[in-house]
Amino acid sequence: MSKKWQDIAQEKRQAVNSLLPEKWKTTKLIPPVSELPDVTNYAATFLSEKEREITAQYTASELVGKLARREYTAVQVVEAFCHRATIAHELVNCISEVLFSQAITRAAELDDYLRAHGKPVGPLHGLPISLKDQFRVKDAETSVGYVAWLGKKETDETESFLVKRLKELGAIVFVKTNVPTSLMAIETNNNIIGYTLNPYNRLLSSGGSSGGEASLLALRGSIIGLGSDIGASIRLPSAVSGLTGLKPSHGRLPYLGVANSMEGQETVPSVIGPLAHNVADLRFLFKSICQTQPWHDDPKVLPLPWRADEEEKGRESIKEGGLTFGVIKWDGVVMPHPPVQRAIQETISKLKAQGHEVIEWSPPAHQEAFEILWNTFAADGGTDIHATLSLSGEAPVPQLSASFGEVAGTLPIPTINDIWALQRRKYEYQTRYLAYWNSTATLTKPGRPVDALIAPAAPTASFLPGNGLYFGYTGVFNVLDFSVVVVPVTKVDKNRDPKVDGYVPAGDLDTLVWQQCMYFPNQTKDGASLLI
Amino acid sequence: MSKKWQDIAQEKRQAVNSLLPEKWKTTKLIPPVSELPDVTNYAATFLSEKEREITAQYTASELVGKLARREYTAVQVVEAFCHRATIAHELVNCISEVLFSQAITRAAELDDYLRAHGKPVGPLHGLPISLKDQFRVKDAETSVGYVAWLGKKETDETESFLVKRLKELGAIVFVKTNVPTSLMAIETNNNIIGYTLNPYNRLLSSGGSSGGEASLLALRGSIIGLGSDIGASIRLPSAVSGLTGLKPSHGRLPYLGVANSMEGQETVPSVIGPLAHNVADLRFLFKSICQTQPWHDDPKVLPLPWRADEEEKGRESIKEGGLTFGVIKWDGVVMPHPPVQRAIQETISKLKAQGHEVIEWSPPAHQEAFEILWNTFAADGGTDIHATLSLSGEAPVPQLSASFGEVAGTLPIPTINDIWALQRRKYEYQTRYLAYWNSTATLTKPGRPVDALIAPAAPTASFLPGNGLYFGYTGVFNVLDFSVVVVPVTKVDKNRDPKVDGYVPAGDLDTLVWQQCMYFPNQTKDGASLLI
Repeated sequence: MSKKWQDIAQEKRQAVNSLLPEKWKTTKLIPPVSELPDVTNYAATFLSEKEREITAQYTASELVGKLARREYTAVQVVEAFCHRATIAHELVNCISEVLFSQAITRAAELDDYLRAHGKPVGPLHGLPISLKDQFRVKDAETSVGYVAWLGKKETDETESFLVKRLKELGAIVFVKTNVPTSLMAIETNNNIIGYTLNPYNRLLSSGGSSGGEASLLALRGSIIGLGSDIGASIRLPSAVSGLTGLKPSHGRLPYLGVANSMEGQETVPSVIGPLAHNVADLRFLFKSICQTQPWHDDPKVLPLPWRADEEEKGRESIKEGGLTFGVIKWDGVVMPHPPVQRAIQETISKLKAQGHEVIEWSPPAHQEAFEILWNTFAADGGTDIHATLSLSGEAPVPQLSASFGEVAGTLPIPTINDIWALQRRKYEYQTRYLAYWNSTATLTKPGRPVDALIAPAAPTASFLPGNGLYFGYTGVFNVLDFSVVVVPVTKVDKNRDPKVDGYVPAGDLDTLVWQQCMYFPNQTKDGASLLI
Repeated sequence: MSKKWQDIAQEKRQAVNSLLPEKWKTTKLIPPVSELPDVTNYAATFLSEKEREITAQYTASELVGKLARREYTAVQVVEAFCHRATIAHELVNCISEVLFSQAITRAAELDDYLRAHGKPVGPLHGLPISLKDQFRVKDAETSVGYVAWLGKKETDETESFLVKRLKELGAIVFVKTNVPTSLMAIETNNNIIGYTLNPYNRLLSSGGSSGGEASLLALRGSIIGLGSDIGASIRLPSAVSGLTGLKPSHGRLPYLGVANSMEGQETVPSVIGPLAHNVADLRFLFKSICQTQPWHDDPKVLPLPWRADEEEKGRESIKEGGLTFGVIKWDGVVMPHPPVQRAIQETISKLKAQGHEVIEWSPPAHQEAFEILWNTFAADGGTDIHATLSLSGEAPVPQLSASFGEVAGTLPIPTINDIWALQRRKYEYQTRYLAYWNSTATLTKPGRPVDALIAPAAPTASFLPGNGLYFGYTGVFNVLDFSVVVVPVTKVDKNRDPKVDGYVPAGDLDTLVWQQCMYFPNQTKDGASLLI
């Protein structure tokens, strides 16, 4: 008789725990959430000075430089991150695969290579990297949060193309990070590892679907990682944990051999992108991958090299009197909470102070894009997701059933012609949006369309588990297939973000999200618990 | 009571005929097919020397040069092509919209502009261009071969983006050309204009779906035109009429606002490309459009400029000892007829004589790609096509019913999950094909993968109307999304292409196509009736 899904899940959870070295565990010392909601400073006290230095003081490219100059060994670096990642997992439950042993073995090989050859194996020599649990890594499992997908180790043959490439470049995969079952949720929860919490306030959500990745990074358990994004999944977790995250346009980073649910859905494609502590590192990793010309192997990657001329053009624009920005203060659907409003306002002020121009953005209704996105997610009525759940018999977590129902057949199933109509609607919306963008040439001082948009990454700084409701601020740009970068601006501050009375919501969803607009009793003493 | 579809079709056919100036018509003089199957030299005798010169002696860029230097007026040029196009239509039935009057008016404006400003309006100043009847042109109808879509003139608002852009560049649209109903056939036939014949042998097919375009060009009734291609539609007509045709990868030329059937189908996208008399003109038109950066307006166009560096790399490879080619002699499904086999052999010999390397190509089975393509065409079970037919009540032409049935419901209707599986299968096939391509680095002398492939454009030089059976030789490259150019190599020659006895076909389709391998009694005296 086959095992119960609950048992399989529990065994996996225990296996992950048992692969975390006992010597590094601090479980018994961790204060309760009520005493220490913000755990971003917790791990450091358990690390050596060297480990603190390695894990917190450098950008990824600085660290790679130090490795190449043999200021640190790769083993030293990887062990420091393994140590810190162990504590991170105990705090916020962010890891789904522990690959410490392989990583340290590989680091030793790289150290040998460098000693023997006097040069690094590649531009990422010795760089530890964390990966969302949909990348297939040799000798690791790939669950995508599904119990049914546990129990099968990847091999040389099945390893994701990008993982192979990262290894060739010298990167060391040391951990995979938690995701919501199927990836189709903006909270990170599944029946295997459970819920991933927010390191800045463990009462709150890490966002999703790359929530494991973001929480690990925010705790400096990793220096850089890769996630994926089809609606919010890189950007929301980055935003609620004070990180930078890049969602490129489709066809830039190779998805070949990376697991996914609803695979073959191409109406709005999921894309891979980096999460990191700063924009320089996003650029560093993206460019390093791009320079390997992945389009020769992955047919979905476009033959678009890193465009130095486009970078240069941006710099030229600044020299000639600044950039021009369109700003979205609200999207007409869900009003951002006061701290988010303030973040946008501060961004505008800073940009203007530096001589840049900011204009109001009045595009084709974002509500339309959000509907297109949701209809894409529901294009098979949840058939694919429920078929995978049923392989093990597991029940969907609430974050999944909220969208796709408790059982198959909850949502209506569109026809092919419905989907073609949806794809026409998407194209039509994209076209109108571009036309609007072009039309701003008449509004800006230099007489060219705006260079970029500024928008909230989410209407809230985070939310209580089970309360992730709206991803329209990010999702619209998946429908548009724009590239988007999330950067931290400020933290929630009770004194500067007073409660607003009398706001009249624009609809049911707006009402629900606005009702979440409160301050959490257990926030840290300085009143700053969340980044946005 | 609404009109019968037969009457609407007949009225349109007559309207086209009545817009062709009587002074240019030669209908009563045209010999019967049995006497003159090849009509490629027929029109010239009715033209003035100047008209012959204009319509037959120049490349498009040469003609634009002469216009810019005022060696010809735009009116002279456009009238010459209108004259020749009129005769072409009488011979092979290739025109669906006559726009002579607008074209001549526009030509006069351009002449005035050049006189007044001393410079052309743009790089295509005065260049007449023909367009497949799916481009929406102001004041013209857009039938796509459907009776139901007649009766509505396009406006400034509905004109296709590319048509607007071509006009801005100075091109003059003077005619639209015939297509099969819905475009989904490799013969050009519909209930409105009827069947478009092959100018090199009017007993044979012009191919499809850009058959009207190719036949008009082959008769020099146009110097350059635009078609579209989702399986064969630029390449097959180009091949059977001795033209050059370019099927780019998707996302290069803007499809925005161009009519189509099965619109919203994105599994294997239809693409726009030029047909012309030589490769230089394909390059000229493609580059002219590309340089206007259409990606700022059409969200499906990729931000890929004309890549001079890629051109240069090709030239470098030649300097360094030649290019390397893979050659496909047959695709494992349908054996090419003897003249096609000879064409490939001659191509190989010529390339080798010039120092290039040619290796055998043994890729993942093309049969697989052909199945993927056909499943894409049948993705809605013909629902869209039959729904449009039913708007007017017209019966499908045999070329359409052969694939999609006489009535709706003939084909099974896949689910969304079936289509996602198909899209995965496509990606998987593309991936294996790229891997095979890369693997040829071990087979070539310079140690790099082959630079390009050589393949037949079709297994036959043409076929009798109603006998268009197989488009696998072109279709595989739509599934792969490779860019492909068709170039004329040779003509059928009874003496050099003897009948082959004893070939054992590989399957039913092979048997059917091989049975078409015969010589037509009415071919021209020199034995050369068809280009391939």
